[in-house]
Amino acid sequence: MKILLIGASGTLGQAVHAELGASHDIVTVGKNSGDYRADITQDASVKALFESVGRVDAIISTAGKLFFGPLSEMSTEQFDIGLQDKLLGQVRLALIGQHYLNDGGSITLTAGTLALDPIRQGANATTVNAALEGFARGAAVDLQRGLRINVISPTLLNESKDIYGAFFAGFETIPASRAALAYRRSVEGAQTGQVYRIG
Amino acid sequence: MKILLIGASGTLGQAVHAELGASHDIVTVGKNSGDYRADITQDASVKALFESVGRVDAIISTAGKLFFGPLSEMSTEQFDIGLQDKLLGQVRLALIGQHYLNDGGSITLTAGTLALDPIRQGANATTVNAALEGFARGAAVDLQRGLRINVISPTLLNESKDIYGAFFAGFETIPASRAALAYRRSVEGAQTGQVYRIG
Repeated sequence: MKILLIGASGTLGQAVHAELGASHDIVTVGKNSGDYRADITQDASVKALFESVGRVDAIISTAGKLFFGPLSEMSTEQFDIGLQDKLLGQVRLALIGQHYLNDGGSITLTAGTLALDPIRQGANATTVNAALEGFARGAAVDLQRGLRINVISPTLLNESKDIYGAFFAGFETIPASRAALAYRRSVEGAQTGQVYRIG
Repeated sequence: MKILLIGASGTLGQAVHAELGASHDIVTVGKNSGDYRADITQDASVKALFESVGRVDAIISTAGKLFFGPLSEMSTEQFDIGLQDKLLGQVRLALIGQHYLNDGGSITLTAGTLALDPIRQGANATTVNAALEGFARGAAVDLQRGLRINVISPTLLNESKDIYGAFFAGFETIPASRAALAYRRSVEGAQTGQVYRIG
């Protein structure tokens, strides 16, 4: 399959590439690196991306920024960062990308364990990840031409423990390679509207 | 208790007012009616509202707009309507309102059954309602001074069946008065971070 991988240079993106690269044709996309460059917060950039790449069999996103901070100091502007970037950015890839997918193609987006397991300073992350899980459920029943959509919700990765571990007190971590398996499951499997919780 | 009720003129808002009005001091807020006017999509408007009303014991929101339409025709701009209005609008009431709540006060927001039970043309609604349920979980662990937050997720109301019933094929409906009970449970109860599913 021809697979568009957005967020390819990140920890998870690299693991997904390693998992799927041998059996599929992966087109990598990043903000500042990859076969193509795109900014998921801009319609024009995402449309230009798909116009350049052409039709694909699968879209995988491991991209998106959240806002972390104490709720008592959080502004709506800060909260909107996660809504515009990780949430609407990935929704944009689905809304625009659906028109460039071959029949029976799939969309796989990335949420995260905070959707159900909140932490201090993580209200934006829990909201955005829960929203993405909702989007998979909502979009799955409305997609045409046999298109499918799933969301992967991994727990904290071993590789990210040094950076984020202090926020995730007592959470078990997993290797990114384990999370990457779920992306194969979504792309090559038959399910739609699912949340694969890995952790 | 002094309770600020935003969205007071709507079907659900009126039912909440009827349920709580006899035992509490309700201050009603609407976009175009009520004791005070406010636009939940604007920081300045919500800040001015709380500056005028002063400290309260509970904030209840039954306000917020969603976008309905086929996924195959949906633009990111249309999708952002629900994010900016029902989602970030209610989050804004919580983020700003927390600073005007008396110790131990509560915030009660409104999601909806589509969070878990998607319908055609409802991807935006499922996303936004799931996000609000996530926000209650995420904010609850970070609120200070014993403040609490819960979200009510009612199914379709009897009173709204004529307008929305065609979208909700086969859904049971409930009287708004039943949904309103859950708001009393949130305001007078002791729980936080909960989703009360009514239907």
